Amino acid sequence: MRSDSVQNPLKNSMQNYARTIRFKDTDAAGVVFFANVLTICHEAYEHSLQAIGFDLKLFFSNAGSYAVPVVHAHINFLQPMFCGDRLLVNLNPQQLDPYSFEINYRITNENSKSSLLSIAQTKHICISGDRTKLQLPPEIRQWIDMANLNSDPI
Amino acid sequence: MRSDSVQNPLKNSMQNYARTIRFKDTDAAGVVFFANVLTICHEAYEHSLQAIGFDLKLFFSNAGSYAVPVVHAHINFLQPMFCGDRLLVNLNPQQLDPYSFEINYRITNENSKSSLLSIAQTKHICISGDRTKLQLPPEIRQWIDMANLNSDPI
Amino acid sequence: MRSDSVQNPLKNSMQNYARTIRFKDTDAAGVVFFANVLTICHEAYEHSLQAIGFDLKLFFSNAGSYAVPVVHAHINFLQPMFCGDRLLVNLNPQQLDPYSFEINYRITNENSKSSLLSIAQTKHICISGDRTKLQLPPEIRQWIDMANLNSDPI
Amino acid sequence: MRSDSVQNPLKNSMQNYARTIRFKDTDAAGVVFFANVLTICHEAYEHSLQAIGFDLKLFFSNAGSYAVPVVHAHINFLQPMFCGDRLLVNLNPQQLDPYSFEINYRITNENSKSSLLSIAQTKHICISGDRTKLQLPPEIRQWIDMANLNSDPI
Repeated sequence: MRSDSVQNPLKNSMQNYARTIRFKDTDAAGVVFFANVLTICHEAYEHSLQAIGFDLKLFFSNAGSYAVPVVHAHINFLQPMFCGDRLLVNLNPQQLDPYSFEINYRITNENSKSSLLSIAQTKHICISGDRTKLQLPPEIRQWIDMANLNSDPI
Repeated sequence: MRSDSVQNPLKNSMQNYARTIRFKDTDAAGVVFFANVLTICHEAYEHSLQAIGFDLKLFFSNAGSYAVPVVHAHINFLQPMFCGDRLLVNLNPQQLDPYSFEINYRITNENSKSSLLSIAQTKHICISGDRTKLQLPPEIRQWIDMANLNSDPI
Repeated sequence: MRSDSVQNPLKNSMQNYARTIRFKDTDAAGVVFFANVLTICHEAYEHSLQAIGFDLKLFFSNAGSYAVPVVHAHINFLQPMFCGDRLLVNLNPQQLDPYSFEINYRITNENSKSSLLSIAQTKHICISGDRTKLQLPPEIRQWIDMANLNSDPI
Repeated sequence: MRSDSVQNPLKNSMQNYARTIRFKDTDAAGVVFFANVLTICHEAYEHSLQAIGFDLKLFFSNAGSYAVPVVHAHINFLQPMFCGDRLLVNLNPQQLDPYSFEINYRITNENSKSSLLSIAQTKHICISGDRTKLQLPPEIRQWIDMANLNSDPI
C-alpha cells in the first residue's frame, strides 16, 4: 500500500519545507542572493530533523558529543527567486559510508511544482569535538531511514 | 461584538507572525545575533502586507512609484533566543503624520507568550524615487487601519 | 599636545573602521538592508577590540567567564548606502555604570566625511554564564579608556 | 622578467582579498556558517572588479544592459574558520566559452598560507534583462585577462 504525504504528515515534514522569500534574502539585482539559497536548503534540513524530535539548540551547538558539519556543497541556479515567492524545498538524505551522508535538495515554486528553480547538495561528515571522524550515531541513521521510507512505493 | 483572531484569520495574519529560529540566525555565542532580530521583525511586516494582498516583489523593489524605507529602528533584548525556538512576533502599525508610520513589535516564545523576549520599533517615511517626501498612499493607510481594527474591542 | 590619528595609529584603529559595502549587504531596493547597518557597527566594535589585542574567538564565544551582549540598539538612517560605497564608521564607547557601557557610532562616506549616512548606538551589559549581572572586567574598562584618550584635546 | 605582487599592486588586488571573520559570519557551532564562505568568495570577486575600476553599484544592479549571475557554485570545507581569523582569498577567473566564465577560489589563513581552509568555484553566465544569453562584454574579458596576466611567469 502506498503511504503518501497526505496519509503521513510526519514524512511530509521530514521531506518538504515551505519557505517564503524575504526582503533580506534578496540583493540589489532584485533576486535572491546566490549563497542564501544554500542557507534555505539548510533550513529544510533543520526542519526535517526537528520534525522527528531533534533538539536543534543542542544539535547545532558545540556542546554535543558529535557534530555533522557540511564538508562539501554544490548548487545549480536554474531560475531567479523573488521577494514574496513561496518556495517548496524537497530534501532527500542518503548515507554514504559509516561516517557521512549527503542531502539532495530540489527547490520549486509552490505554485508551479513542475518547474525547478534550483538543485543542490550538501555532504556532511560526523566528527567529535577534537575533529576525529566518528561513525554516524543511531539517531542520524534513523532520520535518514525515516526520511526515505516509502520513497520507492509499490 | 468581539472579533478575535479565531474568528478573523486575516487579521491574525496581519498582526502575528510565527518564525522558527534557524542556525543561520545564531552566532558563536550560541544565541540569535542581535541585528537578526530586527530582520525577523521586518519579516513580520512583510508577512502582514502579503496577508492583505501586497505584491512584495514590486513593493520591495526600486521599480514602484514610492518606497517606505526604514528611517529609524530601536530594539530591546530581554531574553536570548536559541536555534529551534518557535517565536511569535506581534506587530502594530500606527500612522504618525501624512508621510510616515511606525510599527511596534513584541516578540514572545510561542510556548510561553507571557514572557517577552524582545520589543522593537521601526519608523518608515514615504518617498518618491528621487527621495522627495510623499503622502502615504491609500493602500498603506488601509493596511494600517485593517491591522488595527478591533484592537480596542467592545 | 594634540595626539591625532596620524601620530597614533592604534587609537585610529580603535575609533575608526573602514568598510566597503558588499553585494550581500544590499536588498532588492538597491541599497543596504537596514538591519545590516547595525551589523557593520558591530564589526567596528570587533575591529576596535582586536586593535588592542582582544582574542575575538574567545571573546565572542560562550566559553569565557563573562559576556557583554547587546541589550539595546537604536539607529537612524539619513542617507542610503550602495554596493561598492566605502564607509567610515567612527565609534565612541562610554561606561554607563559598573555593569554596562554604550557605544555611539557615526557612519560617513569615506569620500565625503562631512555628510552623515547613519548614526547608531548599542548598549551592552556584562553578565556571567548564568546571566547574573557582573562588573565590567578591567580589560573592557581599559578598552573604553583607551578609545577615549585624547578625544578632548588641548 | 617576473612581475610579482610587490611590483604589481593592481594585479595583487585583482587576485587577492584579505578578510577578517566577523561575529555575524559565525553560527552557534562557534565557526563560520558554511554558506557564508561562498559570500566571502563573492566579496573577493567584487573586490577584484573594483580594483580595475568597475562601478559596483551599477554592475550589481538590475539597471545595466547585462548581468552575469552565478549559475553554479561548489565548495569544499577543509578546516573551520573562527571569529577574528584573518583570511586570504585568492581568486582566478577563466573564460569558459563566449558566454560564461568560472572563478576558482582558494582560502587560506593569512598567517599560515600553506594550509588550505576552503576551495570553491562559481560559474557565471552573461544574460540580458530578459534573460537571453549574451556574449561576455569587453570589460569582463579584459578583467579575466588582466587577472591572469603573469600567472605563468618565466
